[in-house]
Amino acid sequence: MTWHAAYRERVLEPDYTFASRHLKDHLIDALVAHVRTVAELPAARERGGVVDALEGALVRVRSAPTPPYAPTVPDLYYAVQHVVAESVGEEALGWLRLGLSRNDLDMTIYKLRAREVTLATIRGLLAVQAALLDQADAHVDSVMVAYTHHQPGQPTTVAHYLAAVASVVERDVERALQAFARLDTSPMGAAALAGSSHGLDRDLTARLLGFAGPVVSTYDAVAASDWQIDVANVAVSVSITMSRLVCDLVAWSSQGLLRVGDGLTQGSSIMPQKRNPVALEHARTRFSRALGAAQSIVLSSHNIPFGDLNDFGPDVQGSLQTLHNQLSGGLALVQVCLAESTFDDDALTRSLERTNTTATELADELVRIGGCPFQDAHRWVGALVARMANEDRPFALAEPADLIAVGGPTLHPDVLRDAVSPHAFVARRTGLGGPAPESVRVHLRALRDRSDEYHGAVDHITARIEHAAKSLRASRKDVTS
Amino acid sequence: MTWHAAYRERVLEPDYTFASRHLKDHLIDALVAHVRTVAELPAARERGGVVDALEGALVRVRSAPTPPYAPTVPDLYYAVQHVVAESVGEEALGWLRLGLSRNDLDMTIYKLRAREVTLATIRGLLAVQAALLDQADAHVDSVMVAYTHHQPGQPTTVAHYLAAVASVVERDVERALQAFARLDTSPMGAAALAGSSHGLDRDLTARLLGFAGPVVSTYDAVAASDWQIDVANVAVSVSITMSRLVCDLVAWSSQGLLRVGDGLTQGSSIMPQKRNPVALEHARTRFSRALGAAQSIVLSSHNIPFGDLNDFGPDVQGSLQTLHNQLSGGLALVQVCLAESTFDDDALTRSLERTNTTATELADELVRIGGCPFQDAHRWVGALVARMANEDRPFALAEPADLIAVGGPTLHPDVLRDAVSPHAFVARRTGLGGPAPESVRVHLRALRDRSDEYHGAVDHITARIEHAAKSLRASRKDVTS
Amino acid sequence: MTWHAAYRERVLEPDYTFASRHLKDHLIDALVAHVRTVAELPAARERGGVVDALEGALVRVRSAPTPPYAPTVPDLYYAVQHVVAESVGEEALGWLRLGLSRNDLDMTIYKLRAREVTLATIRGLLAVQAALLDQADAHVDSVMVAYTHHQPGQPTTVAHYLAAVASVVERDVERALQAFARLDTSPMGAAALAGSSHGLDRDLTARLLGFAGPVVSTYDAVAASDWQIDVANVAVSVSITMSRLVCDLVAWSSQGLLRVGDGLTQGSSIMPQKRNPVALEHARTRFSRALGAAQSIVLSSHNIPFGDLNDFGPDVQGSLQTLHNQLSGGLALVQVCLAESTFDDDALTRSLERTNTTATELADELVRIGGCPFQDAHRWVGALVARMANEDRPFALAEPADLIAVGGPTLHPDVLRDAVSPHAFVARRTGLGGPAPESVRVHLRALRDRSDEYHGAVDHITARIEHAAKSLRASRKDVTS
Amino acid sequence: MTWHAAYRERVLEPDYTFASRHLKDHLIDALVAHVRTVAELPAARERGGVVDALEGALVRVRSAPTPPYAPTVPDLYYAVQHVVAESVGEEALGWLRLGLSRNDLDMTIYKLRAREVTLATIRGLLAVQAALLDQADAHVDSVMVAYTHHQPGQPTTVAHYLAAVASVVERDVERALQAFARLDTSPMGAAALAGSSHGLDRDLTARLLGFAGPVVSTYDAVAASDWQIDVANVAVSVSITMSRLVCDLVAWSSQGLLRVGDGLTQGSSIMPQKRNPVALEHARTRFSRALGAAQSIVLSSHNIPFGDLNDFGPDVQGSLQTLHNQLSGGLALVQVCLAESTFDDDALTRSLERTNTTATELADELVRIGGCPFQDAHRWVGALVARMANEDRPFALAEPADLIAVGGPTLHPDVLRDAVSPHAFVARRTGLGGPAPESVRVHLRALRDRSDEYHGAVDHITARIEHAAKSLRASRKDVTS
Repeated sequence: MTWHAAYRERVLEPDYTFASRHLKDHLIDALVAHVRTVAELPAARERGGVVDALEGALVRVRSAPTPPYAPTVPDLYYAVQHVVAESVGEEALGWLRLGLSRNDLDMTIYKLRAREVTLATIRGLLAVQAALLDQADAHVDSVMVAYTHHQPGQPTTVAHYLAAVASVVERDVERALQAFARLDTSPMGAAALAGSSHGLDRDLTARLLGFAGPVVSTYDAVAASDWQIDVANVAVSVSITMSRLVCDLVAWSSQGLLRVGDGLTQGSSIMPQKRNPVALEHARTRFSRALGAAQSIVLSSHNIPFGDLNDFGPDVQGSLQTLHNQLSGGLALVQVCLAESTFDDDALTRSLERTNTTATELADELVRIGGCPFQDAHRWVGALVARMANEDRPFALAEPADLIAVGGPTLHPDVLRDAVSPHAFVARRTGLGGPAPESVRVHLRALRDRSDEYHGAVDHITARIEHAAKSLRASRKDVTS
Repeated sequence: MTWHAAYRERVLEPDYTFASRHLKDHLIDALVAHVRTVAELPAARERGGVVDALEGALVRVRSAPTPPYAPTVPDLYYAVQHVVAESVGEEALGWLRLGLSRNDLDMTIYKLRAREVTLATIRGLLAVQAALLDQADAHVDSVMVAYTHHQPGQPTTVAHYLAAVASVVERDVERALQAFARLDTSPMGAAALAGSSHGLDRDLTARLLGFAGPVVSTYDAVAASDWQIDVANVAVSVSITMSRLVCDLVAWSSQGLLRVGDGLTQGSSIMPQKRNPVALEHARTRFSRALGAAQSIVLSSHNIPFGDLNDFGPDVQGSLQTLHNQLSGGLALVQVCLAESTFDDDALTRSLERTNTTATELADELVRIGGCPFQDAHRWVGALVARMANEDRPFALAEPADLIAVGGPTLHPDVLRDAVSPHAFVARRTGLGGPAPESVRVHLRALRDRSDEYHGAVDHITARIEHAAKSLRASRKDVTS
Repeated sequence: MTWHAAYRERVLEPDYTFASRHLKDHLIDALVAHVRTVAELPAARERGGVVDALEGALVRVRSAPTPPYAPTVPDLYYAVQHVVAESVGEEALGWLRLGLSRNDLDMTIYKLRAREVTLATIRGLLAVQAALLDQADAHVDSVMVAYTHHQPGQPTTVAHYLAAVASVVERDVERALQAFARLDTSPMGAAALAGSSHGLDRDLTARLLGFAGPVVSTYDAVAASDWQIDVANVAVSVSITMSRLVCDLVAWSSQGLLRVGDGLTQGSSIMPQKRNPVALEHARTRFSRALGAAQSIVLSSHNIPFGDLNDFGPDVQGSLQTLHNQLSGGLALVQVCLAESTFDDDALTRSLERTNTTATELADELVRIGGCPFQDAHRWVGALVARMANEDRPFALAEPADLIAVGGPTLHPDVLRDAVSPHAFVARRTGLGGPAPESVRVHLRALRDRSDEYHGAVDHITARIEHAAKSLRASRKDVTS
Repeated sequence: MTWHAAYRERVLEPDYTFASRHLKDHLIDALVAHVRTVAELPAARERGGVVDALEGALVRVRSAPTPPYAPTVPDLYYAVQHVVAESVGEEALGWLRLGLSRNDLDMTIYKLRAREVTLATIRGLLAVQAALLDQADAHVDSVMVAYTHHQPGQPTTVAHYLAAVASVVERDVERALQAFARLDTSPMGAAALAGSSHGLDRDLTARLLGFAGPVVSTYDAVAASDWQIDVANVAVSVSITMSRLVCDLVAWSSQGLLRVGDGLTQGSSIMPQKRNPVALEHARTRFSRALGAAQSIVLSSHNIPFGDLNDFGPDVQGSLQTLHNQLSGGLALVQVCLAESTFDDDALTRSLERTNTTATELADELVRIGGCPFQDAHRWVGALVARMANEDRPFALAEPADLIAVGGPTLHPDVLRDAVSPHAFVARRTGLGGPAPESVRVHLRALRDRSDEYHGAVDHITARIEHAAKSLRASRKDVTS
């Protein structure tokens, strides 16, 4: 077969290079698992020696350098076949090809790779969450002004903010684990789409590859691409979560509240004063690009028939790889930016000095103490805010006379001072999930506990996969003896 | 306050109209739940009469026509406030506003709406799955040629195909239920973002609204938009699944294998012979548009700070509504197209008569019977396919002499006939998830059983929500007595 | 014909409602133009009275209320046919249907609508540009610090920034006009796709509808959807341009440099001190949603055959309408936010007082005066920036001794003061497109001049279209006499 | 400066590798052009020898191997600086850095690259168009059935279809050229964003780099990313055009009408009969991935301030490269699939034998000859279609008696035969852009003529760019002498 040069250069060779780099081990694993399943067939048992030799040949292919791309082979699987045939002969190769199609083989390899990559995403998320929780633990008492609509909103604490983001990240971990569970099934044995008439034990192959089990329907096994949409969707969710966090980190850095570590900034070739928190910008773009890669993956399955396997097979692997690179790169950058940055306590304090964001609490206090309708309280406090601003005096220094001047009731000076203090504002909000240090600590502890559980789940899965890989990569005798 | 005409016309008035149409009941529900929570505060108990009157006023607002948009109010909540104040006075209104912000109120209303819409999606998916399973049950024995790469691939059955798609749909149901679980939490009591200092019982409000519980962190409660990304992602997954199914249904209709019901086709104003399966096309576009709406939702949260609540608040509701319309419309069309279409048995039979898609099985048979390497078998059968095509004879009519002529072994005529028969091809594939009728029946039964479980889960959630709504809409006395 | 209820409710009725609201006038225009073209056929000339009566019937349909949706008609065109037949009989209707297909008719109507909408976008862009230029004219001397990487970069002027954005907007105007030119061609006469055998004068119909000319190929005329991709792409470009402008306006508003007009802000129900520049946020989201709508339009044509006309026909009109609403809404909001906002001169001045962003110029000055390599100059100035920051002294107050202390050369105090003055920094940058007032004025004048030309082009097109519409809506006698 | 390992590994090193591979020549070109512009400054003229030496050093950097990535340099520009300084000393380097920022330098390099890539896209489009026109020339008389809504619509010719697609491709060429014109402007001399105070001649630098001219505003020059959106939008338009063409090619291949060249197909490892037109599938996916890459580019500029240069600077280059790879790969595959495929005349003929798609023409003929209303004609022909189908007789064999039997008028047998003949159907459609051979030939000639003009425009631009590159890469003396 001679392929057109354009087809070789645009499709076959780059796919071969890609497979050699990212998929070879998974390919050998899948073939070994298949061979061991074939070996259980009665006919094969009679020819055990040949099948053993076949596995031996695959083991040698694994450790040998990948054969360079040759214009006569369509893909890496054919190249491996060729080496195997040369090594152990055509009959042995026949046992390898028995009941095997590139359809189920490819889809299995892609899922093995997706499993690896999704676990890396989950670990990246847990690392970001750990960095958030570490900073939160250290800043349970660091009062800051939370902005809403780009304007100062209400006092809260750095920890309250970080714990909220850590909650979103936790949900992203959950999403990723649910996506993982759906892709953790083995297509092997589905052959072209109808299975084979050889009675291969698909449960066994799945177990050998460390999958939770086989995809039941053989048609579903090779033709469904929804597990890729899951991977794309996780990336979308994570990228949006992270883009919003980065937006705030950049703004805090711009306002001088957060100092990003030196090793994560860059100067300017022309502006000597510059110290740009570039790692954050580069993280942001990675998430934008991950969103685009996710779109590539989704579009590759859009308006195509169930039986078209190239679109979400070899052709989408590059997009999955880009998605992984961008996502893991972005998570790694966010994690180090969190770990290597310091909040500037002086700057936080300065930002509180002139704040009027405690206005809500003063209104609430007037309701509680004075028993007046919230309507009136809200109106008086609005007027007080305006009065203090007009006189260029900090809201926190308002005196009882000021309140009276705007038509409000008489408050004791201590009561008023407390009501307009950002620290008191925070301290009073002790309800479920509120910013008061004791509330935040309860929340952080719960997040830590569940984080431990997620780590446990990931470790458990990893152990299962590694055990399977080790068994497949050990000599067959070691395994069965 | 007088807003600029552009702001009124472009933002306030359309949002008011939208809220009046889609969100009013949820708004009243949330306010009643808040009032009942306020009523539990010691200070409120002392003033029970006022709080009772307040709830009464809200009940009247519910049943009264929505006040028309007025240029002096920013939104429906303010309009309701105004009516309440006129009805029961400023003091009562003060109790309503106590510890309540439009931030937590809005986010609660949006989640109540999203809950409703997501349940509708799940029901739509289950209806499509039921239509798939019904057709599958009726076509377990209908052999057809499955295409791969747009070329005839292997024989299978209509039921095998439909069951595979039903499996993907089942995973979409699972995705939607997982998304539902994450959005089924109440933001109420989070106020602007820091909760309040009034000690409101956030668990109680959540329970009154039929939520699984409150969002723990008050900041998370108002600032996180990830539940919307979940809704968008479910739409993406469903749309891709459906776009692929529709692609095949359209192709089968084009080939004459599937006759879409008359009530789902249209003729042409200029081509008298036309009978277009337009409902399928219209379904396809709805899924394309749902993908675009999903992108709108994702982009609305892209690169915005955690504290910007308009983007994923009022401004994204139109996109969520479009997404819902397109998705539910598409699912309804697919469901009726499946239910109202018939497979043309004659056309299926004709398509099998000349098929050479059993070639794989003949090769397998040669391996099994002749003990030859699969390599040789594959090569002989390839040559046999070419020979029969050259002689313009159906592959199924190949005779032992033909096989010999291409260098292959001698087969008994019966063995050969069976090996190239599409029906035998299918009948032999009895392994897990294979197309043989008994395998497909096992798979269909499992899908039905799990479908029952999903129906049960949805009914259970619906009952909880409806019970809460009924309680909120009943007079308070009825509830507490 | 009785359609399935799902098909009627999900497709036919909403499409009918949409067409009645947005497309009716275009439908009648296209039909009148077609009838006048038919009237030129020899056979029709013989039956002139009938054809005249036909046009009369169409005129009456235009002015009568649209018939309500009836479950027996598939679309508005059929409803119009029905009314016409009742009014002037079947023979007259036959002349209407001669050589006419819903394919060319629909595509024509959609392009007439797209023409309208695209011109509105261009006018919206020119209005935003005018607001930018007006503010720029008023702030040619308002020095401000330009940020790069979210950190203070270099001094420039408000006008320099605004003129740069006005340049991008100018290119968006150019894009929109180029897209307009491509869609300004008439599909009429293409019939189903192969034209007709009646010899209809397609140039005439195009001219009657005010198009620049007919789409040459009849197949292209009905099957190409690229003009929609153009519309979507213009929206993408405009939305990104605007999203970046809004980002800066929001940041300036957050920093107190820009005060958005009162009529474009909102307060808080719980935070009495709030004054949120919400119109900017709502603009931002409109552009995000326009991006999603653009994606819907693109996806509707993705992986569909050339002959599928529903996807980019009736089914995509809702997306085009959403795109238009969001885009025009966003542009209107940005325009008023620019027109109704004021830059706070005091705040700008305060932001300059402590700036060290003139560091580049001091380095340049050292090169020019001292003849030292830029390397050394850059290093000394970097050290000077650090020294002044450490001593908490404004960089602009650096003295010759400070420069010497960091190893630099001796400068005359006046030279140093000038070199670190933001105003001098700006004044010296008089090169092409630089921030110096005289440079900016040259740029602004050129932008104004070209803006006048764009306005002229739009007016010219509008006049052509309005003239055609007027002729079509006048009685035929008035036109021909 | 020591950067954090995560920053080096995730950002600096991959960017360095990318720049070394794709951008080095452009970097040197831009630096040489800058140096020659600096050389025109009076101060530099005095030091001519140093500036000459500087250019010499850059020439040597160009021809030397790129220095390997070192963890102490942030990017390739710094690495080049370092080599230059070592070669010709710090003073010379100072002249290089004068008035130069990485901002204008980077943006210039990226535009030089984008120019190259966009020209390649235009050439790829023209090659596809040429292949379409070649096949069209050869199939002006090949009658085929055009499908609408996936059902047989009307007869036309292969050439009529291909010419229609060639028209869409022509508009894509126009789009790409317009995008090219907008990006063909030089940012050089804009420095960080405010230009410099050195009086560098920005027109000269632009001319030296073969740009049409400089970007006027220095702020616009470095901060605008709209030229990237243009590149992305062209890719979107081209991808959609191509996805639709591929959809039809795949369908024709599936129906046996089109035989894709052997070198562009693949067999199956398990299905011996297979001959999959895989090159078409791989083309399709490339366009889906190009759409995703376009989205990445768009999103990288979404909701970021005007002053953030990393997002659409280094960080988006990978997306632009992916977009280019996918787009050029897809175009190359489509071009060879068109050039290396043959239409199967027998299959086309067979598909016409039983067609009823001439029904429209029979109705038209009845109107013309019989003078009956189109209504009646349409109804009679619809009934005739049904009658022939019921009796399983080809529509083309209908006889006058059949027409009478369904209530229609009496036609002469010759007239009837002609009216239902696909070839006559086509031959009669001689109007502007119709399928009749003479009409299609006129259209094809016009497309060829304009294609020549487009080729001329591209050659002209290429010559200008190559001349500039040659001058920059020649020794300065050769240029100026």
